[in-house]
Amino acid sequence: MQAACRCRPASGSDIVAVTGPEIERLIALLAKLPGLGPRSARRAVLQLIKKKETLLVPLAAAMGDAAEKARICSTCGNVDTQDPCAICTDATRDPAVLCVVEEVGDLWALERAGAHKGRYHVLGGVLSALDGVGPDDLNIGKLVERLSSGEVKEIVLAMNATVDGQTTAHYITDRVSGLGIAVSRLAHGVPVGGELDYLDDGTLAAAMKSRRPF
Amino acid sequence: MQAACRCRPASGSDIVAVTGPEIERLIALLAKLPGLGPRSARRAVLQLIKKKETLLVPLAAAMGDAAEKARICSTCGNVDTQDPCAICTDATRDPAVLCVVEEVGDLWALERAGAHKGRYHVLGGVLSALDGVGPDDLNIGKLVERLSSGEVKEIVLAMNATVDGQTTAHYITDRVSGLGIAVSRLAHGVPVGGELDYLDDGTLAAAMKSRRPF
Repeated sequence: MQAACRCRPASGSDIVAVTGPEIERLIALLAKLPGLGPRSARRAVLQLIKKKETLLVPLAAAMGDAAEKARICSTCGNVDTQDPCAICTDATRDPAVLCVVEEVGDLWALERAGAHKGRYHVLGGVLSALDGVGPDDLNIGKLVERLSSGEVKEIVLAMNATVDGQTTAHYITDRVSGLGIAVSRLAHGVPVGGELDYLDDGTLAAAMKSRRPF
Repeated sequence: MQAACRCRPASGSDIVAVTGPEIERLIALLAKLPGLGPRSARRAVLQLIKKKETLLVPLAAAMGDAAEKARICSTCGNVDTQDPCAICTDATRDPAVLCVVEEVGDLWALERAGAHKGRYHVLGGVLSALDGVGPDDLNIGKLVERLSSGEVKEIVLAMNATVDGQTTAHYITDRVSGLGIAVSRLAHGVPVGGELDYLDDGTLAAAMKSRRPF
């Protein structure tokens, strides 16, 4: 016997307009943000309208500001309000070490952690045969160009520990071999605060293999 | 022996500015929306900047529009772009049945479900001794005023099935007794699509008590 469908009856609930067109439009646009769906967008819009002066008006202004001033750094691919970005123009940073990341979000994560005192290079994605992403779709040509200037002595490959990320790391290692630049990657191991019992086998094996004198 | 703290080391990660002030300000404001925190706000902002022309610019305009046009209906408390709202001015709706809800979100949910063909009244909250919310903090005076006009023959109390919601329902029942108006409430029972095994005892008991001829 076939199991009965347990899903809720289709009510078309997310396309019925229940308020004015300007408000419905705001809900539809907010629902496109990652982390928000049609229902949470409705809740967010009600909150915004409730706090019109303290939240909705400043947010509208901040979005206009950001739309006007946000720039993609033409050197590294970071998102900032200046081009070149604040990191590329910061003279106190070590120009000899370049950290290569997949996305701007990864760069921001490393910056928040204060983990890197050199500069960055954002690829804008990873090589992926399935998604049809080849080397020309990524910011790799510009990376090789930067490395050819002779200023960079080491690149740190900070790709995600996924198959595509590691494929990309290998590809970049191949491309830069012969330029006399040291290539390193982030360490694999037990996350700080992590419990062994909950870790996957691959991470545990990597942590054991790369064990350090205590 | 005391258990070691398992939380991540405090890194102050959400207050370190890693990009331009206009973008940081947008992140800080977006993080105030319900359903978004500092991290998801960062992800959302990167998405917005990536899709500047198709998402960020229209969203800024939609927010400006909504800020300018959103109104609280002075009759029922609904949020719309006109006052009185589209529901209060809709002549095809039955003015004799008034559905009383806690919040505008509840009104919108009932509208999406197409569950009510009369008009609404939004209280703007519930009575709560703990939170110090009394009858004067809610839109109850206006409700009694609307009921006194004689047009309304029945009110449907559609409060949440919480202690505060039910307290509020009882209070309103007391206030309107003597006006000759029928007072009903939403049915309690098994949610459509729900499985008995996963329902709480109170709901099952209510569903059994209110059983209907089949």
